[in-house]
Order: sequence, then structure tokens, then C-alpha cells
Amino acid sequence: MTASSDPNTFVDICEVGPRDGLQSEKRIWSAGERAELIDRLAATGLAHIEAVSFVNPKRVPQMADAEAVLQKVTCRDTATLAGLALNLRGVERAVDAGVDEVRYVVVASETFNRKNQGASIDETLGAFEAVAARVGDAGLKLAAVIGASFGCPFEGEVPTEQVVSIARRLVAAGAGEIYLADSIGCAVPNQVADRITAVRVAIGADVPLGCHFHNTRNTGIANAAAAVMAGVRKLDSSVGGIGGCPFAPRATGNISTEDVGYLLRNMGYETGIDLDALIAVAGWTEGYFDAPLPGQVMKAGLFPEIAAAQ
Amino acid sequence: MTASSDPNTFVDICEVGPRDGLQSEKRIWSAGERAELIDRLAATGLAHIEAVSFVNPKRVPQMADAEAVLQKVTCRDTATLAGLALNLRGVERAVDAGVDEVRYVVVASETFNRKNQGASIDETLGAFEAVAARVGDAGLKLAAVIGASFGCPFEGEVPTEQVVSIARRLVAAGAGEIYLADSIGCAVPNQVADRITAVRVAIGADVPLGCHFHNTRNTGIANAAAAVMAGVRKLDSSVGGIGGCPFAPRATGNISTEDVGYLLRNMGYETGIDLDALIAVAGWTEGYFDAPLPGQVMKAGLFPEIAAAQ
Repeated sequence: MTASSDPNTFVDICEVGPRDGLQSEKRIWSAGERAELIDRLAATGLAHIEAVSFVNPKRVPQMADAEAVLQKVTCRDTATLAGLALNLRGVERAVDAGVDEVRYVVVASETFNRKNQGASIDETLGAFEAVAARVGDAGLKLAAVIGASFGCPFEGEVPTEQVVSIARRLVAAGAGEIYLADSIGCAVPNQVADRITAVRVAIGADVPLGCHFHNTRNTGIANAAAAVMAGVRKLDSSVGGIGGCPFAPRATGNISTEDVGYLLRNMGYETGIDLDALIAVAGWTEGYFDAPLPGQVMKAGLFPEIAAAQ
Repeated sequence: MTASSDPNTFVDICEVGPRDGLQSEKRIWSAGERAELIDRLAATGLAHIEAVSFVNPKRVPQMADAEAVLQKVTCRDTATLAGLALNLRGVERAVDAGVDEVRYVVVASETFNRKNQGASIDETLGAFEAVAARVGDAGLKLAAVIGASFGCPFEGEVPTEQVVSIARRLVAAGAGEIYLADSIGCAVPNQVADRITAVRVAIGADVPLGCHFHNTRNTGIANAAAAVMAGVRKLDSSVGGIGGCPFAPRATGNISTEDVGYLLRNMGYETGIDLDALIAVAGWTEGYFDAPLPGQVMKAGLFPEIAAAQ
């Protein structure tokens, strides 16, 4: 957000391609390639990037060497770089590596949380107070992400009350902001609006609320529009829609940053992104993949084709 | 719409795959194949299908033999079959061929209308009174489709007033219902809601209003959601999202019927479609194409995976 931007119409897009986009790719990107992607993204005006994660490199080899990636990037002056962590050890690594923002994940369904973090929801939440203290001492931003906020691949429907309860506990324990993540891309717009309202009531007006959508069932952009219309001003998305394989069963690509940028620009919102430049970066990114990326605006172009910088 | 369906929650989906989906395909489907597609679609509960068009077979060879297609289908008792026409001659053919519904197109931008119909907007509108008389005499339904209602590939932005003015003239001349078509897939949700409201005010409460979206820039499902939330209860879509090539520049696929069906079901609306059966038909359809179809639910499956029939 620039000094002149209007908080009513500015939407903070966090580009998650370097993390959520690459973490399940067959070809493992080198630290240098990941740093180049981050720098190219930052050069389009993206001022918030989920750059790395601090997870077990044996489980997620794609995300190894987070420290090296952060050392190689050259955009530290213009972009807030976030690192994802699933437990206190990961948070310690993130702080030591010098991220600007720590993102800590708790999953709203017990089964999924156990599979993802190897701990119960209570254990993950229980560690959060220490996480908040560690991140606060380091003077960094702390966002808490609630995974499977709209449905779980193992348990099915996730009650709104469960999401609200976790959000309340996270804020009470020191979360600076809350993100609701549709990890499996099952949400629909009225459900999004309802859960945002319920969480907003629970956490109060002052804690920023964001959303993270996947386009698995083609509802991701609709959900992003619904979230913004429900007052959300923070959205995650990935360049080209990378993340998961769009042509495989159970595809799980993120919503594409160019597509979200197009949507928001034409709806009258600002993002600070130069969409023409971002489309070019999406094309560059596609060169590293075997198949076309799922982003649509990178194929169709903007409309009307006026200067896209905001 | 079945006898027991609630007009507040029932959305009439018109499946346009056999027409808009196939009209630009490289491989020309035979009349028998097209009839089989229509019958398979009708068997999933789709009770409204844009089956054929009556255009110059030299210009659109994919749509030749509309009469033969209609003779071969076996679903006439369960589905309302529509035929598209661009001029009075096409309407005459449609009536003679025995469609249940005639869809007549006028494009909201002068340049596009001239390219598409070879006539000015005034000429196309001028012919509409004779069209309405002919269709009315035959006792058939008549829908008027306003192409490029949200933007034109040649002229850029299309003013709301232009769309409103055309809608008003069409209704005055006898249109039974109006469809706003985003022919090039450029619309965004708040624009959709605004234009629907403006047209609704102009044409009054009694004329059914529908929308036809393409997913060219990934906003199609968001626009469908916005249209339904703005009171629209008629949507066009195509099985698997066929229509145009999703991987080519300027892709222009329709929104996918399974994806719209999933969206609406999970939002609490009814469509009468057995989504599991429709996903199977999408898979069958994909077998005729060289590349994966753009529909996402056909790849990811429903969520939650409960019985999908409505």
C-alpha cells in the first residue's frame, strides 16, 4: 500500500507463488531460480510476497534452503517478504532467516491438522503464544492462517463455529492478522461472505482479515470477489495460478494473481500491480512448466487494453 | 423447472454446449454425434438446451444440418430445445425445423453486430417485430440475446445505456425474455449486478432476464454468482466449458455447466441437474477433444461428495 492509496479501495495482494505455487512442483526450483521469481514479481509492484516456508525439507524438498533464497533476493527494500511455519521450530528459523512477516498455520479440522502439522489443533494453538512472543520480540509481523476454513478433504464440512473459535483464540494469543484459507478450493461466495462476517464479529473491527483461495472447482475468483465485497482487503494469489497440477484429478491451483488483479482493477479497486508487467512474469514462469498455467488473463489479455498500472 | 421447484431458488440452466460449444471446434461433429450429445445432456436433468443454430453453413459449417440434428434427438419430451438465429431467414428455418424456442441475437456494439450479422443494429432490431410475429404465430418461445452486453472486442467499453435501450426496444417488439451475453468474457461482478439492475428497471419485473457468460478472463463463475445474487434465474453454460480453445490466446470458453451446477448447489439453489451424471457426460465429451476441457469440477469432483441430484 503506497502513501497515496485509499484503504477503502486498496487490496493488499500477497503473492504466494514462490511458496504455495512451487511447494508441490515435480521439478525442484533452485534457490537462485526462486529468488529470481521473487524479484521479478516484486518488480511488477507486488509489495507483499510469501517467499519461503520453514518446513521439514525431507517432507517438502521444494521448500528447502529458505535461508539461501532470502539471501539472494534483491527486493528487500520494496517488498514485505513472508515465511510460512507450522510450528515453533519453523518460526525460530523464520526469525533467524530475517523474514519481514511470519505466517503460522493452524488447520480448522482435526484430521487435516494432524496430517499437515503432526499435532492436534490444541497443540498447534497451544504453541501459538510462544510463537507470538518470539515474533513480537523480533519486531516482525505475524499472520495466522486458518487452513481448511471452508471444508476439509478428510472430514467434509467444517462448522463456522470451529473457524470462529480458532480465530478468537489466535487473536487472543497475539495474532496480528487472520487469514481464512480454502485449502482445497471448495468454498462458494455466500459461504465466504457468511464466514467472513462471523469471524469479523468475533475478532472485532481492528484485526485485518484476509483470504486465501484455490480455484480447484472454479469458484476461487468468485470467492475473491465475494470476500472483497464483504470487506476483506487482503487476498493471497499466485502468478499464473501455479500450485498443484491443473490437469490432474484433484487439481489445487491457487487463484491467479493476474486474474485477481484484472478482476479488482475492473471492479474499481487498486492493487498497485502493473498488470502488463505481471502477465509478462507469468509467461516467464510458464517457461519452467511442462503445461500451460491455469491463469486466464495471461492468455486472453486485459480488457479494455488500456495502461494497466494502478 | 419441475412442478415442485421453488421459483426463488430454482435456476434455469440452458446448456449451450451443442451450439456455442461446438460452433468453433476444428473437428466438425456429425449430426448424429450432436444429437447424441444433446440426448446425453438431457438425461442428466438438463431441461433446456440450445441445441442448434440456423446460420449460414458456409460461414459456420460446424452448425450445418440443424434440421437433421433435431430429427435425430430422442429427448423432445423432457427438454426444451432452442435454436439460435441471426436474422429472419434463420428464424424461418428454426420454426420450420420445429424448435421449441427461438433465440434471436442482436449485438450491443455496431461494429460487432455488423461483423456477426452483416447488418446494422437498427436493421437487426428492425427485423425483430417480424421475427416476434413469426415465432408467436408458431406458438414458440422467443428469447432475445444481447451480445457484447459488457464489452466489445472492437469498440471496447459498451455503455450501459446502449444495452438498456436495446433491451427496451426488444421487449417492446415482443421479446418474451432477454439474455445479456458477455460474448468476450470481460465482465466483472459489480458491473454484472449494475447492468442487470438497469435492464430490470427498464423492462419491468415480468420479463425473465438471463445471462450468458464466458470464462475468458476467469471471471465467468464470479459473474454467474453475481447475476443470481442480483435476481437472475436463467444462466447459459456449456458442458465441460467447451467453446473456443482454452489454451489458445484469446480463449473464449463458456462457463462450464458442472462448475455452475456445483456453485449453485453449494450456494443453496436448485438446478434439477444430476451433477454426477453431468460430470460423466463431460468426460464422454472430452473424449472427442484433443486437450483437457476447461471445466474444473469434472477434474476435482464435488464437495462434499454427497448425492448430487437435486
